Amino acid sequence: MDYKSSGVDIDAGNETVRRIKGLARATFTPGVLSEIGSFGGLFSLGADWRDAVLVSSADGVGTKLKIAFMTGRHDTIGVDLVNHCVNDILVQGAVPLFFLDYLATGRLSPDVAEQIVKGLARGCQENGCALLGGETAEMPGFYSEGEYDVAGFIVGAVERAELITGASIAAGDLLIGLPSSGLHTNGYSLARRVVFDGLGLSVDSHVPDLGETVGEALLRPHRSYLPVVKPLLGTGLIKGMAHITGGGITDNLPRVLPAGLAARVERRAWRTPALFRWLGESGSVPEMDLRRALNMGIGFVLVIDPKDIGDVQAKLLDAGEANSMIIGRIEPGAGEVHYV
Amino acid sequence: MDYKSSGVDIDAGNETVRRIKGLARATFTPGVLSEIGSFGGLFSLGADWRDAVLVSSADGVGTKLKIAFMTGRHDTIGVDLVNHCVNDILVQGAVPLFFLDYLATGRLSPDVAEQIVKGLARGCQENGCALLGGETAEMPGFYSEGEYDVAGFIVGAVERAELITGASIAAGDLLIGLPSSGLHTNGYSLARRVVFDGLGLSVDSHVPDLGETVGEALLRPHRSYLPVVKPLLGTGLIKGMAHITGGGITDNLPRVLPAGLAARVERRAWRTPALFRWLGESGSVPEMDLRRALNMGIGFVLVIDPKDIGDVQAKLLDAGEANSMIIGRIEPGAGEVHYV
Repeated sequence: MDYKSSGVDIDAGNETVRRIKGLARATFTPGVLSEIGSFGGLFSLGADWRDAVLVSSADGVGTKLKIAFMTGRHDTIGVDLVNHCVNDILVQGAVPLFFLDYLATGRLSPDVAEQIVKGLARGCQENGCALLGGETAEMPGFYSEGEYDVAGFIVGAVERAELITGASIAAGDLLIGLPSSGLHTNGYSLARRVVFDGLGLSVDSHVPDLGETVGEALLRPHRSYLPVVKPLLGTGLIKGMAHITGGGITDNLPRVLPAGLAARVERRAWRTPALFRWLGESGSVPEMDLRRALNMGIGFVLVIDPKDIGDVQAKLLDAGEANSMIIGRIEPGAGEVHYV
Repeated sequence: MDYKSSGVDIDAGNETVRRIKGLARATFTPGVLSEIGSFGGLFSLGADWRDAVLVSSADGVGTKLKIAFMTGRHDTIGVDLVNHCVNDILVQGAVPLFFLDYLATGRLSPDVAEQIVKGLARGCQENGCALLGGETAEMPGFYSEGEYDVAGFIVGAVERAELITGASIAAGDLLIGLPSSGLHTNGYSLARRVVFDGLGLSVDSHVPDLGETVGEALLRPHRSYLPVVKPLLGTGLIKGMAHITGGGITDNLPRVLPAGLAARVERRAWRTPALFRWLGESGSVPEMDLRRALNMGIGFVLVIDPKDIGDVQAKLLDAGEANSMIIGRIEPGAGEVHYV
């Protein structure tokens, strides 16, 4: 028996690495000291930092991948993954430095791998982040034909004095919501059950309530909040931030609240986008379950002092975010989110 | 429909996070500024570095996971993953700072997740590396019942002046091999086909040639070379290093060779361990395929100047490595490995 017949094709792996190299090289920033293909990726922080704190996060795309499989479109999942990771470190005030991916599949298709990495590279470029390396694993017997899993790992940095921790949050502070671009990367197990199992639709079905197909609505990439939030970093205007992922506002906002505080969220402060209403109604999902599974139209929350509202919204507007909304307030409590 | 019935159990996830927190906290080094549960993990490089280069790598365990599934033993896979990552950045002279994991499964068992993270935490502690964070993803419909995939991401650092790149390697330099502890994390698709499909054995089968069961032989953790190589870092005694993973010495050693050089490896310089001989013979695997699929008993290679052999072997011995071997030489060539 030779090695290839055991299900692992080192040459297909090498071909994939060759294609990936060019895509990754286009993302390289001045800090990158190595080429893809080294055992490890090398990154120099440089002399611009006084007292850098590294901020790191790992994530996946979850079952949104199934939508990519069903539509055969593999070049947006990478954008989802990078933007998710970028947002996760942004909440602590960090800007991204570099990103690595882990891509696992049963049998490697260099074409599909290239599409995935194209998305990763585009996401990295849009965030000024180097795609420093990654691992492409061929694992026969782990993934169904044509399927894969992909995980991302990001490292960013923030000056220690400019870390955003939520520690200064106080009762009376305002919650500013920034709109999501869709489901982002959470709630897909629920959405798939409602749409495919419940309604019996396919990704090509046109949904009048949405004005587009199921595939278009569900595959829309996770938005990066870095471009609109970056001008606020280092200004002292932000007390805390939350990236609204699995668990919704309900579980994510409390992660930045100091002890003795809670949040009151005004449900009518923003209009729930059609996609969320349609999913909730079609699946008869109880509202509180919906609010833990989905972002309901708010993908990122800033906590600010009420006196700063003018400055914050002006800076957001200058950066291109015309739809920021006051969605609630901080109040005394025990870390819970009240929807009123 | 509620969210839990769609296949995702946020409460099981929270229970897992609670168990993981204590395990991770035990790995924290002075650089760690955050608790698991923040959006991102925080790490301060501190003031000890003059001109730090970050070295980062991503990896998985490959189909060695199937052996964990078959034996029901999940607390060593994490050690494999951490040690693999540690070795990958060690080849460039870096010591590990922190590690993050990505664990994906169809339905989350807090017990299995805890076993996996126990291994990760032990691996991190043994390498002086903080388990800074991670993602545990429940993905219904992706993984078979009782199965999972796990990926690791490591960040280490090396002073720029002490980076090991292989650039000074010259014809006549010696190759020093360090013994592997088993298959490490490569060649499992081949090994499984030979052992389970070909020989019809189970993980509980006792193999007289090995003096142990199939499960014991195949699950033995990937060794970390950090403890024995660390005393050599910064001494100038090492010109280049290679971690022998997928592709064997054949594909990995050339990654550190400057243009115009090749390697000559003396097959009789070391005794191929019984496990590799048994797999090759049982599967009638051609020798060159075997040498690309498996490490054949050498898990790590140092390239040194011949005049330094005494110093290098003395330092290795002092660090507890009694079985380092001269396995070959650098010679003029085009990046190939000749086995003689």
